[in-house]
Amino acid sequence: MTTIQDIADKLGISKGTVSKALNGASDISETLQKQILETAVELGYTKLRRQKGCAKKLCVLVENQNIEYEEPHHFAYDIIMGFRQKAEPAGFDVDIVPMDEKTQRSSSYDVFMLQNNYLGAFVLGFSYTDPWMQDFQISHTPVVLYDNYIQVNPTTAYVGIDNNEGMELAVSHLKQLGHRKIGYLSSALGSHVMQVRHKAFFSAMRQYGLKTDSTYAGSSYYITQCMEKHLPRLLDMGVTAIICSHDLIANAAMIQCQQLGYSVPKDISIIGFDDLPICPYTSPPLTTVQQERTELGKCGYYALDSLINNVSIGTILLHTRLIVRGSTAKTASAAEECS
Amino acid sequence: MTTIQDIADKLGISKGTVSKALNGASDISETLQKQILETAVELGYTKLRRQKGCAKKLCVLVENQNIEYEEPHHFAYDIIMGFRQKAEPAGFDVDIVPMDEKTQRSSSYDVFMLQNNYLGAFVLGFSYTDPWMQDFQISHTPVVLYDNYIQVNPTTAYVGIDNNEGMELAVSHLKQLGHRKIGYLSSALGSHVMQVRHKAFFSAMRQYGLKTDSTYAGSSYYITQCMEKHLPRLLDMGVTAIICSHDLIANAAMIQCQQLGYSVPKDISIIGFDDLPICPYTSPPLTTVQQERTELGKCGYYALDSLINNVSIGTILLHTRLIVRGSTAKTASAAEECS
Repeated sequence: MTTIQDIADKLGISKGTVSKALNGASDISETLQKQILETAVELGYTKLRRQKGCAKKLCVLVENQNIEYEEPHHFAYDIIMGFRQKAEPAGFDVDIVPMDEKTQRSSSYDVFMLQNNYLGAFVLGFSYTDPWMQDFQISHTPVVLYDNYIQVNPTTAYVGIDNNEGMELAVSHLKQLGHRKIGYLSSALGSHVMQVRHKAFFSAMRQYGLKTDSTYAGSSYYITQCMEKHLPRLLDMGVTAIICSHDLIANAAMIQCQQLGYSVPKDISIIGFDDLPICPYTSPPLTTVQQERTELGKCGYYALDSLINNVSIGTILLHTRLIVRGSTAKTASAAEECS
Repeated sequence: MTTIQDIADKLGISKGTVSKALNGASDISETLQKQILETAVELGYTKLRRQKGCAKKLCVLVENQNIEYEEPHHFAYDIIMGFRQKAEPAGFDVDIVPMDEKTQRSSSYDVFMLQNNYLGAFVLGFSYTDPWMQDFQISHTPVVLYDNYIQVNPTTAYVGIDNNEGMELAVSHLKQLGHRKIGYLSSALGSHVMQVRHKAFFSAMRQYGLKTDSTYAGSSYYITQCMEKHLPRLLDMGVTAIICSHDLIANAAMIQCQQLGYSVPKDISIIGFDDLPICPYTSPPLTTVQQERTELGKCGYYALDSLINNVSIGTILLHTRLIVRGSTAKTASAAEECS
């Protein structure tokens, strides 16, 4: 266990100065404080120094370029609510901290956490390009990532839905409705969750004995590009249903199909992922695989609490549900058989 | 929410009789009690009726044909200890219940749980052939399964290690030591965890760019059969390392290699899975992928507690560690390069 003395020895300064820096005293230069904090982290000193009566603090770090959270209809609002519902009764103060690349570049994750007295973080909306994604490979302060996975580091955990289960529910539903040729439209595969869902699509199709190959899937960075490039191609191939990597693509696909003269769900069935608040109000209302966001937040707390207590959970996946609405129906031939 | 009145109405008997049966009163025939309990379960009445001051009860169900737990050196001892370390301070009484097929056939899982006043179960050592594995597809009482996975049912969760991570650690370690031709020996693929590890082996080999195909793997129900049938075949193919699905196979493989005139690790490296208490004492001591059993038990409680609180966790995977001992070494050519 690293002590304040170890840090002082390493830097050749007094224990008092180290202690001041760790406690954020104002009579120490910013440069010296940063140097002391970085040395503390380097030596493995990541323990919060808790004064008596001081609250235990956690933070939710939100990359707000990628994810919205401030209003009740925003995607991450309920996730944060669920996290707080578990963390606050357990005696934690929870700070919600918007996080941009600049802040990430100015200090390392461990230093940031030590400096702000946070015991652990729940991280929302980070992509592979966020600088701290590299830090998490070797960081020491517990961190739980929503929809991102860091292998091996025992102080990191991944929380999300069971995308394989969700994809199987979607494919099974379509197969029961008579669909055999099913396509898949996706955002760019530059994030963990998009890669997992892409793989899950092919795996579910194989499991249900439905023919597929890479031509049945299309992914683009921009939704409009996906609609122009991949959707018409899938329709030409004769698919009768399309599963989409998330609800916004599914909604765009429904609109685009209708513009091309196809009726949804009569000619073509569409399924989304996430169950965004918009889904009951699209035209037709969207069948989708639900992420229970409040539960995801609660799982975030479960995982973080366990990491803080040295139980190194790596992954928590929530069960999914298929919410059947109006965008899926029997194929023409299956409907005929019934009539 | 189902009430006692609903059960009474369905059976055409009085509320008092139902109440008596649910509370295990002795002046009701066993046949009638069973009928009332089964109807209660059928109607979704799985809530524990708690008298004031009554303890909350959980159980650990152990299929003791498959798993030993009574002595500190037994595999499941620490798992149960970890579970109790979390459950008991949280106010739960924990019963350890040996479970055989006969008991499972005599009543359904839900009825058993209701009858014994258990809020939830942590299940160890069940295989696909255990009758209740079917029950868990549709049961209502929270159940957490160690190393078994039930899809879709929101009151079931799976707890285990991240076998993909573990397998990648094993393959990466061997690759760093210069190994390119790596074989895999496994128990029969009739259990969830054996299927997952088998798949993980091929996936890890691909990820590290190492050539492999189905001939590089062999699985048998009996260890002796695996040693006679598959081990010599792998050696003839020229593998320089073998990963085994668990430590007992790894130990048998080391002994068999030595009997066939191969030196471990000079001629052939061997890696196991689980880190059983025997591993430091095999000859040579076995390099293996660790399951932290106390932590697994704690995760079992985390998952069960969340299911009881309607957070439907489906999967919790623990981070793994590779414990490097004496059964792995550089290949002859890699060793030469260094000298």
